Amino acid sequence: MSRSYTVSQLAQLAGGTLRGDGCGIITAVADVLEAGPDDATWVTRSKYRDAIRDSRAGVVFVPADFPATPMPAILSDHIERSVAALLNAFARPVSRPHPGVHSTAVVHETARIGESSAIGPHVVIDAEVSVGARCIIHAGVFIGRGSTIGDDCVIWPNAVIRDGCTLGSRVILHPNAVLGADGFGYFFEEGAYQKIPHGGGVLIEDDVEIGACSCVDRAKFGNTIIGRGTKIDNLVQIAHNCRVGKNCVIAGNSGFAGSVRTGDGCVIGGRVSVLDHNAIGGGVSVAAMAVVTKNIEDGATVGGHPAQDLRVELREQAALRKLPDLLARFKKLIERVERLETSAHDNP
Amino acid sequence: MSRSYTVSQLAQLAGGTLRGDGCGIITAVADVLEAGPDDATWVTRSKYRDAIRDSRAGVVFVPADFPATPMPAILSDHIERSVAALLNAFARPVSRPHPGVHSTAVVHETARIGESSAIGPHVVIDAEVSVGARCIIHAGVFIGRGSTIGDDCVIWPNAVIRDGCTLGSRVILHPNAVLGADGFGYFFEEGAYQKIPHGGGVLIEDDVEIGACSCVDRAKFGNTIIGRGTKIDNLVQIAHNCRVGKNCVIAGNSGFAGSVRTGDGCVIGGRVSVLDHNAIGGGVSVAAMAVVTKNIEDGATVGGHPAQDLRVELREQAALRKLPDLLARFKKLIERVERLETSAHDNP
Amino acid sequence: MSRSYTVSQLAQLAGGTLRGDGCGIITAVADVLEAGPDDATWVTRSKYRDAIRDSRAGVVFVPADFPATPMPAILSDHIERSVAALLNAFARPVSRPHPGVHSTAVVHETARIGESSAIGPHVVIDAEVSVGARCIIHAGVFIGRGSTIGDDCVIWPNAVIRDGCTLGSRVILHPNAVLGADGFGYFFEEGAYQKIPHGGGVLIEDDVEIGACSCVDRAKFGNTIIGRGTKIDNLVQIAHNCRVGKNCVIAGNSGFAGSVRTGDGCVIGGRVSVLDHNAIGGGVSVAAMAVVTKNIEDGATVGGHPAQDLRVELREQAALRKLPDLLARFKKLIERVERLETSAHDNP
Repeated sequence: MSRSYTVSQLAQLAGGTLRGDGCGIITAVADVLEAGPDDATWVTRSKYRDAIRDSRAGVVFVPADFPATPMPAILSDHIERSVAALLNAFARPVSRPHPGVHSTAVVHETARIGESSAIGPHVVIDAEVSVGARCIIHAGVFIGRGSTIGDDCVIWPNAVIRDGCTLGSRVILHPNAVLGADGFGYFFEEGAYQKIPHGGGVLIEDDVEIGACSCVDRAKFGNTIIGRGTKIDNLVQIAHNCRVGKNCVIAGNSGFAGSVRTGDGCVIGGRVSVLDHNAIGGGVSVAAMAVVTKNIEDGATVGGHPAQDLRVELREQAALRKLPDLLARFKKLIERVERLETSAHDNP
Repeated sequence: MSRSYTVSQLAQLAGGTLRGDGCGIITAVADVLEAGPDDATWVTRSKYRDAIRDSRAGVVFVPADFPATPMPAILSDHIERSVAALLNAFARPVSRPHPGVHSTAVVHETARIGESSAIGPHVVIDAEVSVGARCIIHAGVFIGRGSTIGDDCVIWPNAVIRDGCTLGSRVILHPNAVLGADGFGYFFEEGAYQKIPHGGGVLIEDDVEIGACSCVDRAKFGNTIIGRGTKIDNLVQIAHNCRVGKNCVIAGNSGFAGSVRTGDGCVIGGRVSVLDHNAIGGGVSVAAMAVVTKNIEDGATVGGHPAQDLRVELREQAALRKLPDLLARFKKLIERVERLETSAHDNP
Repeated sequence: MSRSYTVSQLAQLAGGTLRGDGCGIITAVADVLEAGPDDATWVTRSKYRDAIRDSRAGVVFVPADFPATPMPAILSDHIERSVAALLNAFARPVSRPHPGVHSTAVVHETARIGESSAIGPHVVIDAEVSVGARCIIHAGVFIGRGSTIGDDCVIWPNAVIRDGCTLGSRVILHPNAVLGADGFGYFFEEGAYQKIPHGGGVLIEDDVEIGACSCVDRAKFGNTIIGRGTKIDNLVQIAHNCRVGKNCVIAGNSGFAGSVRTGDGCVIGGRVSVLDHNAIGGGVSVAAMAVVTKNIEDGATVGGHPAQDLRVELREQAALRKLPDLLARFKKLIERVERLETSAHDNP
């Protein structure tokens, strides 16, 4: 826990250029305004430029063209990458089971485990599962029959991957996430809901990350698909037969109903809902809390319930603020018109 | 994975009548517009009737009175049941622990396990639990003290059934679902929140299904009840002392606060919220995203926040679309009235 | 299950004063209107005072100054505390692993387990973990490297505490809750989202309770903090670097985005959303469903989307109810003005 670096060491480690004294000792990372002389901090956006003047940080990471700062600075052409290196330098040690299969794990004899992969305590891996190389399967994870995991995946404790799921490489699944639960579909017959079989699977492409307690349901047929590089936050629901594009970001508490599709590069805010069978184009931004009730065209920015062009939505929100006043003013206007009418009548 | 059937075999398997050539080989199920010559597809609703003309599917399942199609058709008097049979025919194999108790399961000596039930790896079953016949309790499930499970239940991995819960027969619990966590209740005394004991339980009646990461909290006294045949989607919260009727459907991300009651046969859309102590009548439909803040009478269809008659709600949503324009027009109207007033004053 | 008490015994047990006959036998607790002669019930609030007249309960718990009731009453100066004692008296027995480490638990040799703590089956405790005295760590729980748990904590089954988390004393974590998953943060570079390391931890102070399937993400640096005595319901998301104050209550399905802060003593209703970096003052009440999009000052009561003073919000909601009518009336008013204009023009 008590790691420390000199300012110079941090500059080297983060691929930045030192401006000022490199001898200071840094023992932690902190927020600009809370940092003390032993802390490193960073400013990536111009809106925080003023804050750095009042900061007591021992060193600040800034973009390469940043003006003078009251403390030593580490200048970087790739400020976000440098900050990531800084955070890594002070990151707490992370749990990591040893390579090999823990003695308490239950691995079916037909399952194949790739080179250098670590299978933690109490993991259960069912028949015909394939786990690639260098994976970390943490304690209590369940991988159902016939599922396939690529290389370099990290599955955190107690996540559940049911049968018939396919994960690419470098996939991260956070604790208690669930892949491949039955889709939610029934038909009503003979006085009761009858279950529609969901005999398909889930396909998670390379470099996808799925948050804690998030769920991706299996398809009726074929696969529910999460495209390459897409990142999904905690407590998100992706229903059966959805197809999410590549390099999308879906923030926490969002929910996609059945058979929703998105293009690539979408940014979906927190607690967004998309009703079933709607298609969202490529490069779409959906504001937090929006409810998508129809198809959205490529490149649109939408918000509200039902979701519409965000500027129109914001205009309506602003107008709503004025509505109580409008009602009062409308009442007065009616009185004025009545007076005019009376006057016109009296004086025809 | 590489199963195949002739069209004739599928007709027989699905209880339908073949119209056209029965010799084609079918290897998968696909969407109408994506299906190729080796795929089966289906059309249950008239709105998709046109789509079938452009479909390349090898066979299509349709209702018995469906008009001619460009490919062989399987006609069914019970189209949804026939489609379910089709989906089952191609379903991926599912994980299923062997009957008996896995050697790594920890089952209390006072627990009783019914005939032919399968208790998977790392399952924990506490004292005085009773599990019925032919149940499948998957890996990592916890069943707390004194809980009772009926016959033919399926509990998917890592679900938690705490103490004092009662499940009927044919109940399905999806991965990481939680039954019987303490209700959320406190009173404030001596400068801190004091916990109200939730000493009751949870009663899940026959044929109920509860989604992944959904929670049904235990009651303060008596039981939180989910009625027979009710289906609950993923990430749904049912708070302490709720009583949900029979044959209800509750879509994903919904939440019922404490002591909510519903009649039978309700359809609750996605992300619906019901505030505490409200009663929803029988046969009520609640539109997605609605917030129920008062009692709802039998048979109503409601939506919005606060929820009201859905037609009224939609009228208000439409009116809101016109509000910015109304504000502009109101401003102009005032000017016109002012001109009239000036004119009247000038010309009394 | 079949416990019973005389009315006198219940009065003593609950620290109340008996009024009326103390010999009746009570075998359960029930709702005022559903209680029968064998049931105890209670009335804490004046709004239910009328209900007691029609109740058939065998005994009723009431505040000390409560008027006469048709059945024996137990009067209490601390009615909520007395009701808690009543509920405890009839609470179902709860699962509780034996003190010591279960033979199937996997505890790292460098971990320290305090006196009288019970470590249940299939628990995994990683290196350098410290668990205090008298803790109950239920089946399937994972505690990651270097985490610290105080005294008298209860961690329910399959909850996950990742590495680098610190829990105070008397913390309760409900089933499948997740502490310390990576925060949701990326930067876009070279055509893909790059993960921002979240090397910080989570700090849960004394007497905090966190609901089933709720998530508190780890910080980028420092800690995500939940203040002493704060209670969090099920399915709640608290993102990286949030700092929640002391003695707050956060109801189910709520979500706090990154770096949100609250003061002490806040009451956050169900399904509330707080957008990132916003600060909520001390003693703030946020109505259910509200969306907090800016800082909120101490003591405010807010609601709506975006959240504003609750009275203003309710006025707008009421105004919205009148909007369709306003549109119709506006149309008529324009016609009247047009008639006046025509008349003024004809008759200048």
